[in-house]
Amino acid sequence: MKKVNHLITKLGISYPIIQAPMAGVTSPELVSTVSNAGGLGNIAAGYLSATDTREFIHKVKNQTDKLFGINLFVPEDASATDTELNRAVEILDFCKEDLQLEAIEVLDLNIGNEFHKQIEVVLEERLKVCSFTFGIPKASIIKELQENGVFVVGTATSVEEAIAIENAGMDAVVLQGVEAGGHRGAFIGEGGFIGLMSLIPQATDMISIPIIGAGGIMDGRGILAAEILGAKAVQMGTAFLTTKESGAHHLHKEAILNAEETDLQFTRAFSGKAARGIKNKFMSKLENNTADLLGYPLQNSLTKKIRSEAAKQNNKDYMSMWAGQSPRLSMDEHAEELIKMIVEEYKTIKSEVI
Amino acid sequence: MKKVNHLITKLGISYPIIQAPMAGVTSPELVSTVSNAGGLGNIAAGYLSATDTREFIHKVKNQTDKLFGINLFVPEDASATDTELNRAVEILDFCKEDLQLEAIEVLDLNIGNEFHKQIEVVLEERLKVCSFTFGIPKASIIKELQENGVFVVGTATSVEEAIAIENAGMDAVVLQGVEAGGHRGAFIGEGGFIGLMSLIPQATDMISIPIIGAGGIMDGRGILAAEILGAKAVQMGTAFLTTKESGAHHLHKEAILNAEETDLQFTRAFSGKAARGIKNKFMSKLENNTADLLGYPLQNSLTKKIRSEAAKQNNKDYMSMWAGQSPRLSMDEHAEELIKMIVEEYKTIKSEVI
Repeated sequence: MKKVNHLITKLGISYPIIQAPMAGVTSPELVSTVSNAGGLGNIAAGYLSATDTREFIHKVKNQTDKLFGINLFVPEDASATDTELNRAVEILDFCKEDLQLEAIEVLDLNIGNEFHKQIEVVLEERLKVCSFTFGIPKASIIKELQENGVFVVGTATSVEEAIAIENAGMDAVVLQGVEAGGHRGAFIGEGGFIGLMSLIPQATDMISIPIIGAGGIMDGRGILAAEILGAKAVQMGTAFLTTKESGAHHLHKEAILNAEETDLQFTRAFSGKAARGIKNKFMSKLENNTADLLGYPLQNSLTKKIRSEAAKQNNKDYMSMWAGQSPRLSMDEHAEELIKMIVEEYKTIKSEVI
Repeated sequence: MKKVNHLITKLGISYPIIQAPMAGVTSPELVSTVSNAGGLGNIAAGYLSATDTREFIHKVKNQTDKLFGINLFVPEDASATDTELNRAVEILDFCKEDLQLEAIEVLDLNIGNEFHKQIEVVLEERLKVCSFTFGIPKASIIKELQENGVFVVGTATSVEEAIAIENAGMDAVVLQGVEAGGHRGAFIGEGGFIGLMSLIPQATDMISIPIIGAGGIMDGRGILAAEILGAKAVQMGTAFLTTKESGAHHLHKEAILNAEETDLQFTRAFSGKAARGIKNKFMSKLENNTADLLGYPLQNSLTKKIRSEAAKQNNKDYMSMWAGQSPRLSMDEHAEELIKMIVEEYKTIKSEVI
């Protein structure tokens, strides 16, 4: 008996494939290509200003008439004393020589945040899907978006967080398994580091809003498995990161294409928040200094220059090469071709199940 | 198009359900009940002497004519200096008061191992399935078992380890996802802490021997999802641990039945080897002392008395309450009934897929 997938209908997509919003590496080409190919592209506006967010949206709109989503980071506070700040700068001293930096710049702690202006842009640009990471926005924001026809999606790393998102009235939830690359979306304590095989069915039993499975899913097998566990769609990051349309640094792409599953590791060294990436010198050097790292987003600002210099200098020792736990499944393909292959595989496996 | 599942045929079971060998909590009743119900029961002989292994086998044979398996631990060496030993004893001092122990006994480092005698027992008792954890046995052992008609199964936590098991000529491999409860079966470095959503498909692409998925799988959804990812059967531990036939302490069962997915944590405090269990006082107290713990199996011997006393005194603060990441799916049922329910669910979901 075929079940209707209301999430797919709602999102106006042909396939249950959502491109994960990857801050820093998601290009307008990637977003539009995924949407044009029948999936849902997603703008990663987490680190963008409101002006840049609008400009990014315009670029995507120029390349597609299809629906696409946008992801925003719920703002977080962090503070540090001068002593903490000096210590955090001190432990980064080893980066200076390799990258020929004169100094690790002490950041301005008064970090601005454009979150509310971004919400205005989302409304003005009449976007139809808006997802959030690192927390639940205020009830008034959720309400305003929904009243304007926006489908509001949260991100959870545990069943507890998924329940909180449902209780906040959001329309769907991305369940981020431990397999996922990049930052943990946790917002209740440390959240969970839970494999999707455990996370999806346990959440499915506890919430009614549609579940989008995320983490380690790279092909038709993963999509069908996630659906059987209870997900209505999947969100794929690493799978799209290595495509030709992705804006990731070529060394980042190559590193994933050549990585094995044990090359990945969690680190807080780049941003102050746990994130999964391919282990490199920067991560190794700071492995035993976790107590000296600043909180997010301060540590992120502190390492910004290091990361951008490393990218310019093609030095992958200091780049944040986020990736999920399935690098062996990654492909150097056009995003459209990748989606076609995945859908083909998905259909074949489905036909073989019975 | 229906595919023949050669693993199921080979194991002579009705369903692709293998009961995980759980050292210390697997009773003869559990093993025989699972085999009688159409799955594969598994004796957990890891910590047993050869004599006790034989006795256990006889008890199972008295209760079933069906095939069942046995699991052995590949022996590992560990050593400690007097200073290390004294320090390891010292950090356990806090246990004395709560458990009214006069002293933390300094163990005899000359731990005997019955591995080779156990292999003889397996052959003499003409068992047909023998699995190994914590490494690959010598080629001569694998060969002797296979020549005597034993189906030999390895345990891997990464694709790399799975390849090593296939190269060693073993007949099948249990892929242990990060979701799994109890000890990590890693034997190449730290092994992997990889979600099954990533581990199964990546291994499927690299090896030809049948894959048994393990970790967080508790019901029909998990079995079908694992199969779609590439597994030919699943091994379930926690699901059987809470059944009425399991030999687990009633407080251990209750703790799992009441746990949420974020109550689980890895610890090396009980045995020296990473294992996932429900967080308690013992684990918390030693969280920051990992450098002072002995290696496996020394730490395991050192904490043996603490664990047995805690069990006697019904004090779950000091018991090792191993569990996987899906405690919300656990049930207080008879093992036979559990299997019936799982198979029913599996069939229903399968029929709904298309």
